[in-house]
Amino acid sequence: MKRKYAAILGNLGNTCDRFCSSYKTNPSTLEMLKAAANLPNVTGIELVGTWDIKPETAGEMKTALADLGLDCVSIIPDLFADNRYWKGSYSSKDAAVRQEAIDYTRKMCDIAGEMNCEIVNIWPGQDGYDYLLAADYEKEREWLCEAITLLATEYPKLKFALEYKPKEPRTHSYLARMADSLLLAQETGCDNVGVCIDTGHAFNAGEVVAESIVLAKRAGNRLFHMHFNDNYTAWDDDMIVGSIHTVCYLEMLYWLDRCDYKGWLSMDQYPYREDAAGAIGESIEWLCKFDKILQTHRASIDELVAQGDAVATSRFLRSVIC
Amino acid sequence: MKRKYAAILGNLGNTCDRFCSSYKTNPSTLEMLKAAANLPNVTGIELVGTWDIKPETAGEMKTALADLGLDCVSIIPDLFADNRYWKGSYSSKDAAVRQEAIDYTRKMCDIAGEMNCEIVNIWPGQDGYDYLLAADYEKEREWLCEAITLLATEYPKLKFALEYKPKEPRTHSYLARMADSLLLAQETGCDNVGVCIDTGHAFNAGEVVAESIVLAKRAGNRLFHMHFNDNYTAWDDDMIVGSIHTVCYLEMLYWLDRCDYKGWLSMDQYPYREDAAGAIGESIEWLCKFDKILQTHRASIDELVAQGDAVATSRFLRSVIC
Amino acid sequence: MKRKYAAILGNLGNTCDRFCSSYKTNPSTLEMLKAAANLPNVTGIELVGTWDIKPETAGEMKTALADLGLDCVSIIPDLFADNRYWKGSYSSKDAAVRQEAIDYTRKMCDIAGEMNCEIVNIWPGQDGYDYLLAADYEKEREWLCEAITLLATEYPKLKFALEYKPKEPRTHSYLARMADSLLLAQETGCDNVGVCIDTGHAFNAGEVVAESIVLAKRAGNRLFHMHFNDNYTAWDDDMIVGSIHTVCYLEMLYWLDRCDYKGWLSMDQYPYREDAAGAIGESIEWLCKFDKILQTHRASIDELVAQGDAVATSRFLRSVIC
Amino acid sequence: MKRKYAAILGNLGNTCDRFCSSYKTNPSTLEMLKAAANLPNVTGIELVGTWDIKPETAGEMKTALADLGLDCVSIIPDLFADNRYWKGSYSSKDAAVRQEAIDYTRKMCDIAGEMNCEIVNIWPGQDGYDYLLAADYEKEREWLCEAITLLATEYPKLKFALEYKPKEPRTHSYLARMADSLLLAQETGCDNVGVCIDTGHAFNAGEVVAESIVLAKRAGNRLFHMHFNDNYTAWDDDMIVGSIHTVCYLEMLYWLDRCDYKGWLSMDQYPYREDAAGAIGESIEWLCKFDKILQTHRASIDELVAQGDAVATSRFLRSVIC
Repeated sequence: MKRKYAAILGNLGNTCDRFCSSYKTNPSTLEMLKAAANLPNVTGIELVGTWDIKPETAGEMKTALADLGLDCVSIIPDLFADNRYWKGSYSSKDAAVRQEAIDYTRKMCDIAGEMNCEIVNIWPGQDGYDYLLAADYEKEREWLCEAITLLATEYPKLKFALEYKPKEPRTHSYLARMADSLLLAQETGCDNVGVCIDTGHAFNAGEVVAESIVLAKRAGNRLFHMHFNDNYTAWDDDMIVGSIHTVCYLEMLYWLDRCDYKGWLSMDQYPYREDAAGAIGESIEWLCKFDKILQTHRASIDELVAQGDAVATSRFLRSVIC
Repeated sequence: MKRKYAAILGNLGNTCDRFCSSYKTNPSTLEMLKAAANLPNVTGIELVGTWDIKPETAGEMKTALADLGLDCVSIIPDLFADNRYWKGSYSSKDAAVRQEAIDYTRKMCDIAGEMNCEIVNIWPGQDGYDYLLAADYEKEREWLCEAITLLATEYPKLKFALEYKPKEPRTHSYLARMADSLLLAQETGCDNVGVCIDTGHAFNAGEVVAESIVLAKRAGNRLFHMHFNDNYTAWDDDMIVGSIHTVCYLEMLYWLDRCDYKGWLSMDQYPYREDAAGAIGESIEWLCKFDKILQTHRASIDELVAQGDAVATSRFLRSVIC
Repeated sequence: MKRKYAAILGNLGNTCDRFCSSYKTNPSTLEMLKAAANLPNVTGIELVGTWDIKPETAGEMKTALADLGLDCVSIIPDLFADNRYWKGSYSSKDAAVRQEAIDYTRKMCDIAGEMNCEIVNIWPGQDGYDYLLAADYEKEREWLCEAITLLATEYPKLKFALEYKPKEPRTHSYLARMADSLLLAQETGCDNVGVCIDTGHAFNAGEVVAESIVLAKRAGNRLFHMHFNDNYTAWDDDMIVGSIHTVCYLEMLYWLDRCDYKGWLSMDQYPYREDAAGAIGESIEWLCKFDKILQTHRASIDELVAQGDAVATSRFLRSVIC
Repeated sequence: MKRKYAAILGNLGNTCDRFCSSYKTNPSTLEMLKAAANLPNVTGIELVGTWDIKPETAGEMKTALADLGLDCVSIIPDLFADNRYWKGSYSSKDAAVRQEAIDYTRKMCDIAGEMNCEIVNIWPGQDGYDYLLAADYEKEREWLCEAITLLATEYPKLKFALEYKPKEPRTHSYLARMADSLLLAQETGCDNVGVCIDTGHAFNAGEVVAESIVLAKRAGNRLFHMHFNDNYTAWDDDMIVGSIHTVCYLEMLYWLDRCDYKGWLSMDQYPYREDAAGAIGESIEWLCKFDKILQTHRASIDELVAQGDAVATSRFLRSVIC
């Protein structure tokens, strides 16, 4: 199967952190769109709600994407940058805030419909906790679950991809790892609730991504989306694929195929001090390389995975890497 | 409710690691039993299969425990020290080894029945993987799930507590965290499959134990057992409760009560260089202290958890700690 | 000895992260100063260069601090928020940027002199690297060392406290841990170059702070300053002291005294979603509590530290904590 | 320069951990020696004191190595498996134990002399601490330093390579990271005290090995020895080089050359469940591959390191890897 590559539009923009409010200059949305369209292999784009797209600009964006030959891969509601949600969105202790979060997401779902976009990628970054004995884990998770259930029921044609991440911006997120996100997806009783793996988030969670892909399959084919990047495992460094790790990406592609994943491979990076288009383009080029190895050596890999001999695996890897 | 405290018998014995084969002298089983019975507040004991108990010694052990006034809290089949299982037990690539592991566990289940012991604590420490592209995550997890399902179906009066741990002795365990263990428990379709939290394993997994307790409740009241110890978060140091962390233990007891946990609080430590009875006894004394604080201040804690103000929580904690 | 407590002025201000540009409202400098002066036990303040103080406002600030009865504890040059230093300040590959960083620091040193402030706290947050094979560790460390040597030689009456941190904003900082900072301090050949321990940074680095205090003493009494906060060890969460850890703070105060530390205990937090004054005040109250325990039980602690019996230590801690 | 490859003899033997006392069968010393001699590219061997060599067997071993054409690369005194040192060797609170450790090391130094072996590799694995408020960091480090100074002074023709490791078997080692080991080496005042980098230990410590190589050079050319293996960063998994990480090994070789390292590249693995000779051989083959890339592209790497453009580095790596 041919891989479909995408990127998140905002990755092509300015960068900041809690110390420095601006590392680069602010490009316009149009500049970012053009940069995305120029990336080799990229045929899809993800848009963050409100930043990149609002109800009143959806039509215009649709035209722009069509002109550039880009699919709208997902809409990502902004539940993390808006400080109304500073202590949680769907799981906020404040019922009015929870309602706002749901209403806002509905608008984003409507936009997704309008854009012929199948996926709403939910990253509820502010939903979690920091201090012990200051969160009601039971009620807050229940509220989170209720909101997702409500939205998934109201929009049965959309797929809700829950993007998990163990921490940041909270010290602990409610959707922290693959398995707890699957538990929640199952609790909704909705087949259109699944998971988005961000490879870096999974590294932070101590997961081997290939195993997480299998978990999602076993829980009812719930892998809906993939975000790619690399890091040093301890934090979401959002770096170029292949910067730190190599072998695991080859393994991921193998297991995506074994689990019959047909979705997008989208780049989600944060090039603080790098040329954004260059950094995103590199990630895709690495994945293309790993894909080529896989296509050539799939039968050997099948055998190695069945055999379980680390020395044989190493010998194989040496023959295809370097 | 009155807490029930227990310990794992082997914790009172000799210690070793991969470098040093013996830090202490080997006490006899009887010496360890007496030491356990002398521990203040301890009324139950966990026995590791084969080491502490075998089919032919079960009757004798039953008498010994009765004489010492100790309940048999759980049987822990040895799936980790026996090198037949060096590359997995229930999930071994070798069908004969899988069968051996199941047959062996059956014997342990029979012993549990004979000892009037409700819980079989399953820690499949060798079931996992080390190297990338050398494991078949899909088949191996399926085999693991099949074995647990089979055993839980055959022994409906026993409760199977799956003890998760992210790593060691494998770099990655198949039962790694609370949520993936719950997924597997649910897949079995058996109500008598649940989870054992080892607090130190949960710390290693980046979990806040109180939240894990809630996850288990939400997944069908599946928290069956608790093992207590402390560590520096990066590894299973198996230290005295309260050595590194303080507040989280108070929070755990609060949430155990909120989630209506009625099981044992069992100590699972590894006192490499410490007096074993002293180290285990200390853990229980710490828990008694936290329990006393909880009994006195439960209403305040209810309020703090509802309120979500970290400064108020800190003020309260200062007033009860130190 | 009486402890001297301080805070960093900016901790009382607005908060942000790379996702959300503003969690709170922006207080004025005067409002923050008043809030600081109202904190119980606080008699000193640290000022971040350019944000809080510039050459042209130094006189005014001096008067304001005098009016409020606050000492100026340190000046912290802004080498982290200014995007001129996005790829390093003293260790930038660009000689002009290195020169700018040195010239700018000179201005901050002049201000320190004017404010009768003894310490310049150097946190070169942007000096480090992210990607492998993209940094010249040898030259860049040499440039860093040269800059510090130059400044320390030019300002012999000031003490330069190097604040280490393993990561953030770079994935790897050049001043990453206590020991490498001491190596650099020794290389300068200047007695007025030492170290600032931020307790949270040390936790991130896997250090036990008490041992780091001893390292600094052994390397020529080079512990110049202390920043306090707490975290979950994996990241610089900048939380209230005592939120996660308890025992280690008591141990720190004991070793600060054993090593004859006479400097400030300054709070360095980042209360993203908390009342800032409340959060900082709590940290100080916790330290006061630990200090009181220490004053009462110093002889017992001397004995425990000499004895090395973890069970005895635990028994003691239980008697003074909870 | 031609690389010199070696292995630690015991790596070819049986394996165990704290749960399973024997994963394999015990080969004889002679079998292990032959296996080592058969490893492609291996021309040197490291011997662990007492296990592999004692005063009374040194002559015999010398002959055996000569027959097999192997150099004796280092003697590693056993300060970790002997339970006399269960609470420390050179830094034990017990003066008699400290004396024993020194006397024992003298014997190992004599053997080194007899074997024409230049390096004594000191890994004081039991020297450290586990519990807070139970160690006297000041005295214990001083004792450690005194012992090393004494030995290095008595044996001026030997090079003492201090092998650091942040943890295991203690939760905290006194020789934990590159920089603190360098501080201690400098304190001895002896030029023949330096450091051994075990790449996996450095990963555990959060170090980028290439930077650690530079630190050792800056502190007086104190990199004496190298142990190679790979891991997932959180623990000393002692795996095959290249299993998890790729790029960093290429970077290490580059910086070893830039820092004029002329020592051995020795494999230090722990193949729990793998064919030992196969696993060690694989590591060397990977290093040979990285070396070949380096030899071909050194000028490009020089440029990339000077340039600091992560996108350019990635592009280069893609062209040489895969």
